[in-house]
Amino acid sequence: MPTPPFMTRRDLLTMIGRTAGASALYSAMSSMGLAKASTFIGELNLSQAPKGDSVLVLGAGLGGMTAAYELRKAGYDVSVLEYSERAGGRCFTLHAGDTVTDLSGETQHCNFSPGNYINVGPWRVPYHHYGVLHYCKKFGVKLEPFIQLNYNAYVHAQNAFEGKPQRIREVLTDIHGYTSELLAKATDQRALDEVLTKEDCEALLDQLDDWGRLTGDHQYQQSLKASRFRGYEHWPAGGLMPRPSPSKPLDFKELLHSGLWGLLLDYFNNEYQHTIFEPVGGMDQIAKGFAREVGDLIEYRAQVVRIEQSETQVTVHYIDPSRPDDIKTRSADWCVCNIPLSILSQIPVDASPALRQAIAAVPYGSSTKTGLEFKRRFWEQDESIFGGITFTDLPITTISYPAYDYFSDGPAVLLAAYTFDDPNSYTMSTLTARERIKAALAYGKQIHPQYEEEFLSGVSWSWHRSPWSLGCYGLWTDELRAAHYETLCEIDHRLVLAGEHCSYIPAWQEGAILSGMDASQRLHEKATKHKASA
Amino acid sequence: MPTPPFMTRRDLLTMIGRTAGASALYSAMSSMGLAKASTFIGELNLSQAPKGDSVLVLGAGLGGMTAAYELRKAGYDVSVLEYSERAGGRCFTLHAGDTVTDLSGETQHCNFSPGNYINVGPWRVPYHHYGVLHYCKKFGVKLEPFIQLNYNAYVHAQNAFEGKPQRIREVLTDIHGYTSELLAKATDQRALDEVLTKEDCEALLDQLDDWGRLTGDHQYQQSLKASRFRGYEHWPAGGLMPRPSPSKPLDFKELLHSGLWGLLLDYFNNEYQHTIFEPVGGMDQIAKGFAREVGDLIEYRAQVVRIEQSETQVTVHYIDPSRPDDIKTRSADWCVCNIPLSILSQIPVDASPALRQAIAAVPYGSSTKTGLEFKRRFWEQDESIFGGITFTDLPITTISYPAYDYFSDGPAVLLAAYTFDDPNSYTMSTLTARERIKAALAYGKQIHPQYEEEFLSGVSWSWHRSPWSLGCYGLWTDELRAAHYETLCEIDHRLVLAGEHCSYIPAWQEGAILSGMDASQRLHEKATKHKASA
Repeated sequence: MPTPPFMTRRDLLTMIGRTAGASALYSAMSSMGLAKASTFIGELNLSQAPKGDSVLVLGAGLGGMTAAYELRKAGYDVSVLEYSERAGGRCFTLHAGDTVTDLSGETQHCNFSPGNYINVGPWRVPYHHYGVLHYCKKFGVKLEPFIQLNYNAYVHAQNAFEGKPQRIREVLTDIHGYTSELLAKATDQRALDEVLTKEDCEALLDQLDDWGRLTGDHQYQQSLKASRFRGYEHWPAGGLMPRPSPSKPLDFKELLHSGLWGLLLDYFNNEYQHTIFEPVGGMDQIAKGFAREVGDLIEYRAQVVRIEQSETQVTVHYIDPSRPDDIKTRSADWCVCNIPLSILSQIPVDASPALRQAIAAVPYGSSTKTGLEFKRRFWEQDESIFGGITFTDLPITTISYPAYDYFSDGPAVLLAAYTFDDPNSYTMSTLTARERIKAALAYGKQIHPQYEEEFLSGVSWSWHRSPWSLGCYGLWTDELRAAHYETLCEIDHRLVLAGEHCSYIPAWQEGAILSGMDASQRLHEKATKHKASA
Repeated sequence: MPTPPFMTRRDLLTMIGRTAGASALYSAMSSMGLAKASTFIGELNLSQAPKGDSVLVLGAGLGGMTAAYELRKAGYDVSVLEYSERAGGRCFTLHAGDTVTDLSGETQHCNFSPGNYINVGPWRVPYHHYGVLHYCKKFGVKLEPFIQLNYNAYVHAQNAFEGKPQRIREVLTDIHGYTSELLAKATDQRALDEVLTKEDCEALLDQLDDWGRLTGDHQYQQSLKASRFRGYEHWPAGGLMPRPSPSKPLDFKELLHSGLWGLLLDYFNNEYQHTIFEPVGGMDQIAKGFAREVGDLIEYRAQVVRIEQSETQVTVHYIDPSRPDDIKTRSADWCVCNIPLSILSQIPVDASPALRQAIAAVPYGSSTKTGLEFKRRFWEQDESIFGGITFTDLPITTISYPAYDYFSDGPAVLLAAYTFDDPNSYTMSTLTARERIKAALAYGKQIHPQYEEEFLSGVSWSWHRSPWSLGCYGLWTDELRAAHYETLCEIDHRLVLAGEHCSYIPAWQEGAILSGMDASQRLHEKATKHKASA
């Protein structure tokens, strides 16, 4: 029942009557496309655990705590060993007042103003990370929108436009404009007649005019139409203030060769698409939510040094790192190992040669994050940037503006450098935290000259210098996946691995959580069958 | 000092040293591009008012209250006449428990659950509406991010894709994909050699491959690369859950002729670009913020029936609408008239013929909004839509999901129809509120079949049925502006007009506020000069 472009009152009332009775049609739609686009399996309601069965979980990261939570809920006798003094693993936030020491022995005190923080691990929760959202809801972790794409933030390339940062709204509008103009030109010249009919060409030209904000003869040029999207020279105002005037598009050739276009890509991939969230108060609110549930099961400062499997049980040897000679053991019927492969590969594990090969096969990606606190929100006050991310080809890669407490006075923290799995990230990892802070300042002020005046203090974390992970995430390739992924995830006798490395969502909390759920479910199935056949 | 693609530790340290000393260069940058892109004049610090001068403000909308606030601050003796019982004018929110009556006499009670509301007037605050943001900060109005573009919301056309709503992420990725493929084809076939060099072509093809997520020989097709942006068939997951598999792009020809492309435009114009805000608790928090400051100046239920100007003063005749025979008068040295032209044009005004022509010349745009409350947030729970807007070619045009209290249980309110200045809007205005609610339900369930099960209650507001505005906003054309805009804004003897109709930002609160600031400043200048020459 298509609606004509203009409806009279009578049409409309008739239509209401008609559609009101057509519920069969619409409920048929409910099965199409509306289901959650996820392999998330929903609430894990594992049936009763075999009586007396115990599970030892190694590592109180999100994957391990997911398993601990679900398996205890099912009735297992669960305990958790954790290397550090803290639950959460890479779900890690540095708050004002915190002290942290990295692998090199460098100790940092976070001198931020009270209440300020920086998420040095994961910092975003996509709308389709159903596992994370499920436990946030369950554990009362409040979420707020994160801003990935702020049209008024910048993209910046050192060699383009005299090194001046360019507003995203300008670059994006100009790219749409110039590509639309080119495609319109080709269409107009009948260069695409092989694939487009005359009607197609007409429809395409019509839409390119709108999409590219083209004026005149399908041209992208300085105009109020384009300025409505890229911003004005004089913005529309009130009374007898200056009249709106159009801004001038960037030069096409310079834009084409600037590298800025490529910097836009990361605003749009599924993991960064709006609406995207962050926990109020820092990502570690998620770790704390889990720890409220399973904290009583965790023994902290417990470094695993050996994992043994026998016919009947798993025995784990571990030490308090400050007393390495005092080796303790703990045994259980089953074991969920949430230890990163970067560390697990250095521990003797009783497992099949294939699993041991898989454990050793996956290198770890590098990442560093540097948070700088400034006296005031100059990015908001001077530049009207509220949340969002500036991407640059400088080695700092990223400047991200806080997506909380907008418009507030007083000191605030920028994520001032975020390197992830690129050569700069490895180089940044060779610097001390103090050097990385200096680097973030020296580069960042090319984008925000206010850095110099406004800087207060910084903290920096390099995941390759993290004693409890020795890297950021499992750096899978297609070849490695084909050779090792299934083996890595399969249950080896009484041992199953979990963590982001056992997922297709590496470096994301969702990978750890889904893996923890999947491992729990499969382990429970095996334990149940095992008991039944015993 | 461009940075090479790979830097060693030594390079990086050298660079830090070098850039640390180069502050002159960077502070030179601070004057470029970082200034606020606005004609906002900043805090209005009007110098001392001429002793004893009084100002009468007509209409306690945002423009009028801005003038009242600034002119009282400057020392004028200010009073305000307001037709209704409420300050704010079109800055209007219907809250649970409210009762409202329109021009036709139809009375609605807002039966929403406690705390729920719908903004029936303005609902968004763009990041560059500096006037609104200025007063929000000043008056302690807390803002939260509004979500305009949620990639997981829908665009919907009745005649396309069997009437099934399509996720925005899919449509947007496919448009980028297919247009990139076509442009790559044209480039490859040298159809654009007139404007592109060989190097340009190579750079363009490279970037189109990324931008359009093209695979193979510059083709847009079903692939994991495209799925990273449009979403997957099976999404990446954990452990031995199903492996990620690519989703299938929409058919190009059907997409091209679907009308969906055109529905995307409104996500990107400057007024809707992220980061965009809304006041916590409803837009009328802004009206309440102003009213906290100037509420003591306002006489409510004061309908202006005549505006007289003499050599020495302005005299306004007004009535309480419930006692039309009891005509009261008030006089002042100056008058700021914030009454919408739709109403002012019906009132005798002593002004130049040109101003009276201008007042009569501008028609008013139509708009209706309908809010429906449902038992639960099915759009979040069933469809993973958190905030954002679905656009449709149905007469309801818009479904907007609440961008607050995400993940909460209990009833919540959708903006279930929003028509604005299109034929549907005029037609919708011919319906009663009850009929508009029925229409919103009948059409909306074509997109959300859950409507039928989950509906609780609704309210609807048609701005052409609003007794205090008789329309939504001044519908300027370029021709009307050329003929009348300056006259409308200029001070006529002792009278100056203010409001969104006296701005280049019609229908936006920013237009009213900037106009109020501009009118105040000019009136103050005139009053000061007048006193000096007296």
